[in-house]
Amino acid sequence: MATPLLVHFLAGASGPWRITDIRSVVGPVPDPAPRLAVHEGRDPPAAAWALRAVTSNIRYTRRDEVAQLTARQEGLGRPAANRAALIPIRKTPAWWAMAQDERRAIMEEQSRHIAIGLDYLPGVARRLHHARDLGEPFDFLTWFEFPEADTARFDELLARLRATPEWDHVEAEFEVRLERDGG
Amino acid sequence: MATPLLVHFLAGASGPWRITDIRSVVGPVPDPAPRLAVHEGRDPPAAAWALRAVTSNIRYTRRDEVAQLTARQEGLGRPAANRAALIPIRKTPAWWAMAQDERRAIMEEQSRHIAIGLDYLPGVARRLHHARDLGEPFDFLTWFEFPEADTARFDELLARLRATPEWDHVEAEFEVRLERDGG
Repeated sequence: MATPLLVHFLAGASGPWRITDIRSVVGPVPDPAPRLAVHEGRDPPAAAWALRAVTSNIRYTRRDEVAQLTARQEGLGRPAANRAALIPIRKTPAWWAMAQDERRAIMEEQSRHIAIGLDYLPGVARRLHHARDLGEPFDFLTWFEFPEADTARFDELLARLRATPEWDHVEAEFEVRLERDGG
Repeated sequence: MATPLLVHFLAGASGPWRITDIRSVVGPVPDPAPRLAVHEGRDPPAAAWALRAVTSNIRYTRRDEVAQLTARQEGLGRPAANRAALIPIRKTPAWWAMAQDERRAIMEEQSRHIAIGLDYLPGVARRLHHARDLGEPFDFLTWFEFPEADTARFDELLARLRATPEWDHVEAEFEVRLERDGG
């Protein structure tokens, strides 16, 4: 685990990803834009709209679960992964007021969030970014990359997660769907 | 638990707290300064040096432990609490690479960090601030307030914590000791 990496997701006229859709799950969506760039580090270029967050340390995952994830997951930037999704999520104040064991129980023992994600590895790669402590409008930005052939599987992953008790605590969520140039 | 609060600790010519000492525990200390102010929110005034961090959600504490803390702890700003300390800490990369259960085991099951803190309530009030995800030089800034009569007890609290296995993972730490005007 390296130092937290600040990441900006920049929507506008440029960037390697073509935005194919912005769809609401709960709450409003940002303005349409043609393209999206992922900027790692400080001082991002100007954009039509931007969301920022940091990779950070693990918050819930146990060592045995980390071992399973590490054995199966692949990184970002695979040539075959020509589809992507950016999903910002904000959870309720009641969620954030819970103790650590209460959040862990809902997330994994009741909702199997980590276990469900394992079912879609290595096809669906993901990177979680934390934004709540930065004062941003969303708590998490998750970035997913997958081959076009895994699109239906990715949709299934989202449907399974959204049917869990954990999602009762999601108060805002939208999806940005993307295709990479040449993909 | 409210929204994360951004807090700046500002050392310089002004502020209600008089800096009586800056002492190293591990690693370098900042320049001397006469006074310290605690600025809540964005856009802090200029200062000789500043450290910033956010209050955030609970990371390790279980519901039963939260209940014990809540029953006994008092807030900041008590008139009798005329002494304070600001203690920045940075933990090792190896600490941050651990899974959640590994960090919890070292912190509480082996080191009894939460239980030790309970022994000093309500005399020693504290507020923990997180800075790692902000790209700051320290991971945590803890602010303590206590009556002058509790100074020896506060020193004992620090000595007990620093003798635990958790502190093997602390790679930088210093103390700023303070007295309030009129105190």
